[in-house]
Amino acid sequence: MSVTAARGFRAAGIAAGIKSSGDPDLALVVNDGPSRAAAGVFTANRVKAAPVLWSQQVLRAGKVSAVVLNSGGANACTGSPGFLDTHTTAERVADALGHNAAEVAVASTGLIGVRLPMDRLLPGVGRAVAELSPHAGERAAIAIKTTDTVHKTAVASREGWTVGGMAKGAGMLAPALATMLCVITTDAEVAPEVLDRALRAATRVTLERIDSDGCLSTNDTVLLLASGASGVAPEEKELTAAVTEVCADLARQLIADAEGASKDIRIEIRNAADEDDAVEVGRAIARSNLLKCAVHGEDPNWGRVLSAIGTTSAAFEPDRVDVAINGVWVCRGGAAGEDREGVDMRFREVHILVDLAAGGAGATVWTNDLTADYVHENSAYSS
Amino acid sequence: MSVTAARGFRAAGIAAGIKSSGDPDLALVVNDGPSRAAAGVFTANRVKAAPVLWSQQVLRAGKVSAVVLNSGGANACTGSPGFLDTHTTAERVADALGHNAAEVAVASTGLIGVRLPMDRLLPGVGRAVAELSPHAGERAAIAIKTTDTVHKTAVASREGWTVGGMAKGAGMLAPALATMLCVITTDAEVAPEVLDRALRAATRVTLERIDSDGCLSTNDTVLLLASGASGVAPEEKELTAAVTEVCADLARQLIADAEGASKDIRIEIRNAADEDDAVEVGRAIARSNLLKCAVHGEDPNWGRVLSAIGTTSAAFEPDRVDVAINGVWVCRGGAAGEDREGVDMRFREVHILVDLAAGGAGATVWTNDLTADYVHENSAYSS
Repeated sequence: MSVTAARGFRAAGIAAGIKSSGDPDLALVVNDGPSRAAAGVFTANRVKAAPVLWSQQVLRAGKVSAVVLNSGGANACTGSPGFLDTHTTAERVADALGHNAAEVAVASTGLIGVRLPMDRLLPGVGRAVAELSPHAGERAAIAIKTTDTVHKTAVASREGWTVGGMAKGAGMLAPALATMLCVITTDAEVAPEVLDRALRAATRVTLERIDSDGCLSTNDTVLLLASGASGVAPEEKELTAAVTEVCADLARQLIADAEGASKDIRIEIRNAADEDDAVEVGRAIARSNLLKCAVHGEDPNWGRVLSAIGTTSAAFEPDRVDVAINGVWVCRGGAAGEDREGVDMRFREVHILVDLAAGGAGATVWTNDLTADYVHENSAYSS
Repeated sequence: MSVTAARGFRAAGIAAGIKSSGDPDLALVVNDGPSRAAAGVFTANRVKAAPVLWSQQVLRAGKVSAVVLNSGGANACTGSPGFLDTHTTAERVADALGHNAAEVAVASTGLIGVRLPMDRLLPGVGRAVAELSPHAGERAAIAIKTTDTVHKTAVASREGWTVGGMAKGAGMLAPALATMLCVITTDAEVAPEVLDRALRAATRVTLERIDSDGCLSTNDTVLLLASGASGVAPEEKELTAAVTEVCADLARQLIADAEGASKDIRIEIRNAADEDDAVEVGRAIARSNLLKCAVHGEDPNWGRVLSAIGTTSAAFEPDRVDVAINGVWVCRGGAAGEDREGVDMRFREVHILVDLAAGGAGATVWTNDLTADYVHENSAYSS
């Protein structure tokens, strides 16, 4: 049900002609209120796309009345003309809706370094506004796809209120954040500062803990919009839990659809000195091309796990680390443990469990395998 | 000419039966003096193989009379039994040569987590000693190959003295150091502390600036041995230049033979605020899987260069960065520059030039493209 699962929201997804394929490429999400409270988190990349720079400004006031998203072009590395394109897009949306452009967020995804075809995008905005519907959440989710093979939506239903969302992202996924556009909506009554805390708490343990290929995008945008249409004001804890549920669901879908992937790898770190150590170790393992190739070959190569751990600054003693792959403790005390022949890696999900024996903290990071299909898909992307 | 180009050295390379293929797998380099001065640099990985731990101890005294190297097994993550295997190997070499085991360095390469077949390795030491020759440098270089398709040697000749070396390494190449074993010899008369400075100065700008796949090995070892047999005592500057020449030559050969690579990528950073910034930016670009795929597809995707730069903490302004690919300034001021259609990427060497416009420092980092062959080779390594 996507971004229209919660009351007070309408959406649209259309083909504006930005993509040469003619596939849907323009999405609109409108918050009909009564509240327009909003929060956002954005890419940590210092090279930020024009729509990221724009939306960061919009979010500073904690209010968003509409989000316009396009696939088919990232509008990154396009200089001031690119920023003007984003501004013009927001103005066009605001004009058509009778809103204020300063409350219209913009998100873009696609190839870096190319200007958007504004002559097609702007007329598309008019058509998207005309097609706005409280039942078009799926269509909006479809319109933000790039190399995604499926569209991604999620919903968490609570008594009297709902959180729903959509996301896109299939490559260039890395914390923080995974390369993605993500819009989450709720009909709960929530103040902007509570939304902000809930969104940061949720993304920190979900969307920021997936790493497809170690490459951090220029365009990552995650927005959380609250309409207040349910009239219910949940406690912050409840809200955070529901937003986390939706983010976790979307994060899993992003990993499952990662470019060329044949395996989803769940890297669970236990008994770290603290959570930062656990995340650092999990990410180092998630970024080892050698390990990702081994998993692709269904090879329980725990040596590549150890050598990745060794590149971190986390607290651990090499001769106290245990590693289990799919339940078999193939490494005990930093050396060979149980027989690796016992590891069954035929299924899509692979579980790597690392016991650092250095404390009581833990974290889980998701990645996927590295495949020839990833190489093929990314060798031909812009051609 | 390898490690026997300099006077005072003998070498051997034999098939001891460590590799099931029957290929050469045991190398020995002996320094017949009169000097036994030596220096070494080792992997920065905190999970260090037994031979690294052993050789680090040996090098502390600045004297090495012999180096025994094996392929077919890394002897990493093998616990105290693995360390005892290394110790026993050094003892056997020392006994056969009438040397002191405390002056025998050991280096190993191959699969992590598996014990070495000592019943074949130890008899092999005896045979290697019997075959020692001042003309067997090539044979030693061949015996340390793993997935290398060619053996690597280099020589720098000076008036009256020589520096020569051998190296292996084809994957798991990352600073510092690239995954490799490397032995360099000279017949110059040099004190251990001068050797140490020369070796560190040389590797810092050569072997530590290649990055094949971002994966740091547990076994990297670079040794520099001086026999003094020439009777010539060059100035430190001259020595450093010659050692740097040999290291640079070997580093280029390692990148050229990287697993599955079809392109060698020279990433040159100019006008950085300082050298550390230049190296950080160079490495970030070298580790972008997306960029490496693009280069494989002969796609001058400068947007992926910008997005990699954006992940660093280096001083730069996104709208002042210029990028040239093979001489064409495809990115000017952080946006599209000259026509990317003009970039010719048909040849093996690809030159990415980044102008950070932030100062006067620079650095060059080498990497290679990411290919389906890399995935295939590393999916099947241990099977």
